[in-house]
Amino acid sequence: MTSPDTPAGYAPLDAGRLIALLMGHEGTRMRLGESPERWTVREVGDGNLNLVFIVGGPSGSVCVKQALPYVRVAGPSWPLSLDRIYYEQAYYAAVGPHVRGLGPEILFYDPVLYCLVMENLTPHIILRNGLIGGLRYPGLGHAVGDFIARATFHTSDLAEPLERKMSRLALFAGNQSLLRITVDLVFTDPYRQSERNRHTTPQLDDIAAALRADAALKAAVGRWGEIFLTRAQALLHGDLHSGSIMVTQGDTRIIDPEFAFYGPIGFDLGAFLGNLLLAWCAQPGHATAEDERAAYRDWILGETVSFWETFQTSFLALWQRHGTGDAYPAALYASPDAAAALDRERAAYLRVVHADMIGFAACKMIRRILGFAHVADFERIVDRDTRGRCERRALELALEMLVSPERFESPAALGAQVSAGTAGSSQS
Amino acid sequence: MTSPDTPAGYAPLDAGRLIALLMGHEGTRMRLGESPERWTVREVGDGNLNLVFIVGGPSGSVCVKQALPYVRVAGPSWPLSLDRIYYEQAYYAAVGPHVRGLGPEILFYDPVLYCLVMENLTPHIILRNGLIGGLRYPGLGHAVGDFIARATFHTSDLAEPLERKMSRLALFAGNQSLLRITVDLVFTDPYRQSERNRHTTPQLDDIAAALRADAALKAAVGRWGEIFLTRAQALLHGDLHSGSIMVTQGDTRIIDPEFAFYGPIGFDLGAFLGNLLLAWCAQPGHATAEDERAAYRDWILGETVSFWETFQTSFLALWQRHGTGDAYPAALYASPDAAAALDRERAAYLRVVHADMIGFAACKMIRRILGFAHVADFERIVDRDTRGRCERRALELALEMLVSPERFESPAALGAQVSAGTAGSSQS
Repeated sequence: MTSPDTPAGYAPLDAGRLIALLMGHEGTRMRLGESPERWTVREVGDGNLNLVFIVGGPSGSVCVKQALPYVRVAGPSWPLSLDRIYYEQAYYAAVGPHVRGLGPEILFYDPVLYCLVMENLTPHIILRNGLIGGLRYPGLGHAVGDFIARATFHTSDLAEPLERKMSRLALFAGNQSLLRITVDLVFTDPYRQSERNRHTTPQLDDIAAALRADAALKAAVGRWGEIFLTRAQALLHGDLHSGSIMVTQGDTRIIDPEFAFYGPIGFDLGAFLGNLLLAWCAQPGHATAEDERAAYRDWILGETVSFWETFQTSFLALWQRHGTGDAYPAALYASPDAAAALDRERAAYLRVVHADMIGFAACKMIRRILGFAHVADFERIVDRDTRGRCERRALELALEMLVSPERFESPAALGAQVSAGTAGSSQS
Repeated sequence: MTSPDTPAGYAPLDAGRLIALLMGHEGTRMRLGESPERWTVREVGDGNLNLVFIVGGPSGSVCVKQALPYVRVAGPSWPLSLDRIYYEQAYYAAVGPHVRGLGPEILFYDPVLYCLVMENLTPHIILRNGLIGGLRYPGLGHAVGDFIARATFHTSDLAEPLERKMSRLALFAGNQSLLRITVDLVFTDPYRQSERNRHTTPQLDDIAAALRADAALKAAVGRWGEIFLTRAQALLHGDLHSGSIMVTQGDTRIIDPEFAFYGPIGFDLGAFLGNLLLAWCAQPGHATAEDERAAYRDWILGETVSFWETFQTSFLALWQRHGTGDAYPAALYASPDAAAALDRERAAYLRVVHADMIGFAACKMIRRILGFAHVADFERIVDRDTRGRCERRALELALEMLVSPERFESPAALGAQVSAGTAGSSQS
């Protein structure tokens, strides 16, 4: 399973190797409970890239994530740097102090086996599965908005001296294998013919062809791709969709930050917003006689509003209290006049972040329907005509977000467009 | 002269050490001519930071630049990393292939002595001195515009795969001592009380106080400071003022890129533009009975126009021919419709670069009058009232550029504002 290029000492974990590894770490051993012969190992990875194990013992359980030297979902023909797990633990280390309780507890990182041993989040489930199941999570939008506000503000030039920001920027600029994936799979492939693309056929053949011929759309996507590569505002999670969030009724946790890099804050916001909108579009495919999901759709839209509003409120409050960075240096804005002018700058800053969120959300939506990696929200809709209708609704909404962004200047406007947008007709 | 913090092997060069160093390099020895006993050494550094030597021999001459472990103009009480000369040679290495003939030929870099040995540019003089002397350089704006277009385009995401760009971004993110100087001296200190500031007093006391109380100005400067820190478009020279350019009637060369880093292209453009505008404002202080410098001022304004127009034309031509980067990937824009949409994006991209140029030019102008490091254009005006009037004109122009940028949307509009701006009155 290893290739000649993998580093010495690296091998994909199996039950035996994994138990040996965990036995060597006292904290982990204590958490599982002494008697390793009673530990159980399950491989549960259902993502696109890695091995994921749950190890249970008499006293508790842990989760172990290991990078493979290739893209799991594609196989060894698509090699991928093992380093991504290093960036994942580096992200947790950087934002952990600022988002206490919003990520998993990290037990240890093994740089030889490229694996990360963490708290096993239980009884949490992947948010995407909850959204497919029609389950409500009170405070979901609030928790994710607050997480992004804290993680991005505290790693931005608004909070940090340039020396610390630039050193971290340099570190994460090394996460190039995963940046390559984002650039190719989000901003390029979906808009051209590529062997890696697929879509629901023949139902979406016409709209796929139309989008790939839409010059205004491709110009907009190019613009967001350029912003993604150049707007180094803050340390981002980089892949914050509903498969990177684990939930219970009372708890929300963010996982899987292996795509971490310095980029535009709106990219993380847009990943979450875009995936909520995909979930909204997919609901007709999960409706039943007992539950047509109409009220549930409204709940999802309500979460997009509280998500943005919490982000905005939390980010502004942090900026007002901890604006200790080199951007907008606090020393210049002590007078009441200057403080008022700074408040106007802050509002303008957040308008740019909001516009970025809308643009990136749309890019993320399109790539999940026309590109390589799809989402279970649609994939689990068995009837292809129904699935195609739901996906078409999402493509039409995303297109509108990209070419008519002025219609989406507030969360309320977004809700109105989603509920009553041009594409309503295509669901009939 | 060295401190306990300087690395082993480092010592400031003197004539003896310098000749020993050069003797060890055959290419340099050949250039100077065998007979080291006939070599002559002159220290000629008149900048703010470094030692600079000209070494002459029977066959030719070389220039040697060595970093000191402190800011030369301030003395050992202001320590500064020696690494800056490493970034200077790294900049030459990165842009050299794309700007052939526009920088000095590099002979070698010594990483122990932190010094760079280069072609001695002769009979070139520092452009700033030429501008003070009222000398015209045909093609000046054209040459600098073309240099910036090539150096920035070829290191941007428009030309390069993300892997190469991100690796270089990471490298130059280490040039933090000099970034710190720019952030403090350009974007912060001039707008507050600081021991490092000075200005022509009492002539400018009122306007200095007014600018430091101007909330809209400080908001605008904060915005440009934030853009400086986050808009990682291309590898920049970082200090491209008229003291970093050497000229003859037929040749223009760019030197001193020790402030190199990844930032907004408009920052390099703005440095040159701002310094041309300072030269324009200073002309009344250098007028004589024989030459009132009116026609010369028009020549300077004309160069600002050809500078921007050459930059724009050259940058667009490079983008059309070599748009091989990950931003706006060429594969998406093959159809005539898409190519036309991409052309509109290119125009929008350049509008942002132009706005950045105006904003950064203004920041650069103000810091040279109210901040730490001043320019000879004004310093050599002996009569303090005249100097104060010239400086006031420059401050008023810069203020207008920062708070009313819409008046400066084209080079022609800039010329009109400069020639007939609000501040004309204050020169009477």
